[in-house]
Amino acid sequence: MTPESFSQRRVRVSAELASRKLDCLVVTGLPNVRYLSGYTGSNGIMLLWRSGAILFTDPRYEIQAAQETDCRVVVATGPLLPEVAKAARKRRFRRIGFERGRISYDSYETLRGAAGAGVKLLPTAGWIEQLRMVKSAAEVEAIRASVLLNSDAFERAVKKIAKGMTETDLAAEIEYQMRLLGAQKPAFDTIVASGARTALCHAQPGSDPIRNDQLLLVDMGASLGGYASDMTRMLFPGRPGKKVKELYRAVLDAQLAGISAVRAGVTAGDVDSATRQVLESAGVGEAFVHSTGHGLGLEIHEAPRLGKKDATELAAGMAITIEPGVYIEGFGGIRIEDTVVVTDNGCDILTTTPKELRLI
Amino acid sequence: MTPESFSQRRVRVSAELASRKLDCLVVTGLPNVRYLSGYTGSNGIMLLWRSGAILFTDPRYEIQAAQETDCRVVVATGPLLPEVAKAARKRRFRRIGFERGRISYDSYETLRGAAGAGVKLLPTAGWIEQLRMVKSAAEVEAIRASVLLNSDAFERAVKKIAKGMTETDLAAEIEYQMRLLGAQKPAFDTIVASGARTALCHAQPGSDPIRNDQLLLVDMGASLGGYASDMTRMLFPGRPGKKVKELYRAVLDAQLAGISAVRAGVTAGDVDSATRQVLESAGVGEAFVHSTGHGLGLEIHEAPRLGKKDATELAAGMAITIEPGVYIEGFGGIRIEDTVVVTDNGCDILTTTPKELRLI
Repeated sequence: MTPESFSQRRVRVSAELASRKLDCLVVTGLPNVRYLSGYTGSNGIMLLWRSGAILFTDPRYEIQAAQETDCRVVVATGPLLPEVAKAARKRRFRRIGFERGRISYDSYETLRGAAGAGVKLLPTAGWIEQLRMVKSAAEVEAIRASVLLNSDAFERAVKKIAKGMTETDLAAEIEYQMRLLGAQKPAFDTIVASGARTALCHAQPGSDPIRNDQLLLVDMGASLGGYASDMTRMLFPGRPGKKVKELYRAVLDAQLAGISAVRAGVTAGDVDSATRQVLESAGVGEAFVHSTGHGLGLEIHEAPRLGKKDATELAAGMAITIEPGVYIEGFGGIRIEDTVVVTDNGCDILTTTPKELRLI
Repeated sequence: MTPESFSQRRVRVSAELASRKLDCLVVTGLPNVRYLSGYTGSNGIMLLWRSGAILFTDPRYEIQAAQETDCRVVVATGPLLPEVAKAARKRRFRRIGFERGRISYDSYETLRGAAGAGVKLLPTAGWIEQLRMVKSAAEVEAIRASVLLNSDAFERAVKKIAKGMTETDLAAEIEYQMRLLGAQKPAFDTIVASGARTALCHAQPGSDPIRNDQLLLVDMGASLGGYASDMTRMLFPGRPGKKVKELYRAVLDAQLAGISAVRAGVTAGDVDSATRQVLESAGVGEAFVHSTGHGLGLEIHEAPRLGKKDATELAAGMAITIEPGVYIEGFGGIRIEDTVVVTDNGCDILTTTPKELRLI
């Protein structure tokens, strides 16, 4: 992103303050702060008003903040919120917006206490997240680059699978390859699960060797330039039996149905229905225990959520995952996941890795 | 940890409810939930009362939760807090404690709305965190294992440093070695910074090659069995000049003074003063822009904080870092960090990696 895009984003938020009857907004969600400033540190709050913005941080990030953002920076040696309140008092702001889902009860009380008498704190919900939901062309390219890097790391790691390798070893190899390809880190804890452990949707890799003639699930994502990717693929060391093949077919059909359902104007719930119906017809609807997918970008989980009856209307530029799965305790789980970008007539499937059950 | 220790911890909290005039506590901080249950998933809330406890999670974690915890588990298909409130209403709890620093304003409002009329929500601050501050013998051994693994990974990665290697390559190597040695993941984003970039306390590794005749800073930690380690070491590819040697000596003296100051009964601020005085005497007090250290355990940053005038009294069993540093824009930064455990008469230095400036 260019510094211009950050200031443009801030202007977009500032322009909306009046219609929301706010004098300013206190941005406490770090990914939101990053979106509006470019700042990537672990401690930062933005105060944004009609004609300006300040990024508050601490001395550890003084040099970094100056390098990363075009926004005015104030370095505070103590807690940031009292400084934010001071800056708001100085400008006589009376109606202060805050991010209700991105501030702790504790911090809210601190802000309220420091804001002073006669000042109203007004909760906002998902405002910046709504803006972030639709990606700019530059953001789509950042996500695409992350997705391609992720697929590349997957291929390289799969080639290294050898006898006796554990789930943890494979996760290590995957993350190493991501890093060597330039990723800053995994976008989330890499999931590698073998055998019956594939039935744990969010399995942590274990120290058991990858089992022959059993399902092997890999769910991985990279963080590149701040942007996440997310992909799940199934492998099979050996020859799959009839039940595995049938279940795999059902999940793949569901995933393809989900992708076919995506286009601007349909609801997130419509896409969820599309995958769910296929699995219900196959008699495994009960084993599909999560939603069909989620948005992603600066965070691995963003709006929209593609859950049952979710009313959010998809719009061109949204980056989402399509990831139906079935999980049967004792037997195992199967999930197939791509990252796609919504377009007017369908979607742009960013993930290029083939979707067949990969025999190794 | 054995399941026994989880139930013992819960009993310890339950026993304190009466004196705090609470009927129950809603535990929303995930590391606190883990501490009290063993559950490691990314979505979970515990309701804990005098004679029992329930862990609430969603269907993705149903199988995992059953494997990880001895606590009763309730699987909710929607948001968890309304279910928590329902369980509290069923038991006619009127005074519900909640974790003020570990719940969002949004979630607090949800809980308040769902709790019903006549019910009081009462904030608690750092209760479970206080318990977690002093580690059990088993926890100290878990941290020691994490620290030793971390040092081992450092040695292995340093041996691989070669001409043309970038900061990112070295970070990749470090994290790969951690993983191969059995770590679940890095405890935080690995910092590798070369040259002037060492002045950024929390530098993200970049794509520039590691520079000759310049400082090289590595700040790394592993997460093993849920427990964090944290170490910073300085390397120098080439021959350091006089200024680097002098500054290094000052920081090392400060770090040794900090370690010498640690023992049960002194305050966290006393330890901070010990390191700060050395750097002030060396004329670089202004360049020491952060606190001397922090507790660590299930989280990389825990209580106590070893900051200026911090009044927390150190107690035997606390695991803390000692990490003074100086940062000079344009020149670079130097930090030296060990993980230690407070004892009655001093401390047990868990970190075994030598502390000389490492010439490579």
